[in-house]
Amino acid sequence: MIIGEVIGTVVSTRKCDNLVGHKLLLINKLFSENKDVFVASDKIGAGIGEYVLITQNSSAQYAIDGHAPIDAVVVGILDDLPKL
Amino acid sequence: MIIGEVIGTVVSTRKCDNLVGHKLLLINKLFSENKDVFVASDKIGAGIGEYVLITQNSSAQYAIDGHAPIDAVVVGILDDLPKL
Amino acid sequence: MIIGEVIGTVVSTRKCDNLVGHKLLLINKLFSENKDVFVASDKIGAGIGEYVLITQNSSAQYAIDGHAPIDAVVVGILDDLPKL
Amino acid sequence: MIIGEVIGTVVSTRKCDNLVGHKLLLINKLFSENKDVFVASDKIGAGIGEYVLITQNSSAQYAIDGHAPIDAVVVGILDDLPKL
Amino acid sequence: MIIGEVIGTVVSTRKCDNLVGHKLLLINKLFSENKDVFVASDKIGAGIGEYVLITQNSSAQYAIDGHAPIDAVVVGILDDLPKL
Repeated sequence: MIIGEVIGTVVSTRKCDNLVGHKLLLINKLFSENKDVFVASDKIGAGIGEYVLITQNSSAQYAIDGHAPIDAVVVGILDDLPKL
Repeated sequence: MIIGEVIGTVVSTRKCDNLVGHKLLLINKLFSENKDVFVASDKIGAGIGEYVLITQNSSAQYAIDGHAPIDAVVVGILDDLPKL
Repeated sequence: MIIGEVIGTVVSTRKCDNLVGHKLLLINKLFSENKDVFVASDKIGAGIGEYVLITQNSSAQYAIDGHAPIDAVVVGILDDLPKL
Repeated sequence: MIIGEVIGTVVSTRKCDNLVGHKLLLINKLFSENKDVFVASDKIGAGIGEYVLITQNSSAQYAIDGHAPIDAVVVGILDDLPKL
Repeated sequence: MIIGEVIGTVVSTRKCDNLVGHKLLLINKLFSENKDVFVASDKIGAGIGEYVLITQNSSAQYAIDGHAPIDAVVVGILDDLPKL
């Protein structure tokens, strides 16, 4: 899993039917040399500025009900950002 | 999921049987340090210049009918490009 | 699999139900040009400072009981750090 | 999917039983910042110098008969190399 | 698949039960811009200094008996190292 910060939301009106109802968050990767920003779905109510744990690829399916074309999910909100 | 811009289409006459009927778009990765261009299939009608949400790897299978050798699919068209 | 060093733990009180009970370790990648820090679950009791073997992506599911939204698991503790 | 150029073949006499009969091509990644060379299996008869579309990871299984330990497959030959 | 060179072995006495019996090789990535060293399991008897073909991620499961938390497997020994 990777650690990221929620920096916004993404709105897509035209999308796959099985993405409807999935909240999409914009995530800034932390503790990573590449500073990519990506999108993860969220069902635990993470808000902007919170530090979150993200599961990627097909294991992300175990965090959602049924199946959907989702390859990254917020699976936890960190109590504190780790100090390295 | 990652955000990309549709920059073209890809035509392949000689291809796997189960790729037939899948539209193939050329995608420019956005918000990423590497500027790779890759190919994603599309069923929601994204056009050149549109900003799209792309699901990768095996989760992409949930965006298509049946199964096909596809590892990236356009799953949504963004209403607006996020401002970082 | 990749080799990493355990450098801490991660605590998340608000998380997916099926992550409950999974210990989460902060891992420093070794022998890698990118110095990313990520999170792996652990069931074999690896401690801080130990060098571990980590399985990633969906194959990680074979190291846990049942299924969970986990994409990296500590699957072994190295007897010695390899000398390159 | 990614776009690559076929630059050679790979021969392996000692290999897994379920790799027997799969032609292995050496591929040069195109439109990518990293210039990695990797190996993909091929069933559509791509030749050296041709530009091909490659599906990676577990979705590659849908391009072969049955299953095999293959994580990259040539799924199409491009009619023309895209002009960026 | 990627090409690597076997540069050593990895010993882990405390490990997951379903990793027992899997030989673990230390692999140096070749033809790659990143010079990462990683670990792959091996059942075809590759020795130090040999050039091997490695399958990654969940497709690696098709190279082993049953299932195990393994995300990289040596699937072939190259007759010759490709000349680029």
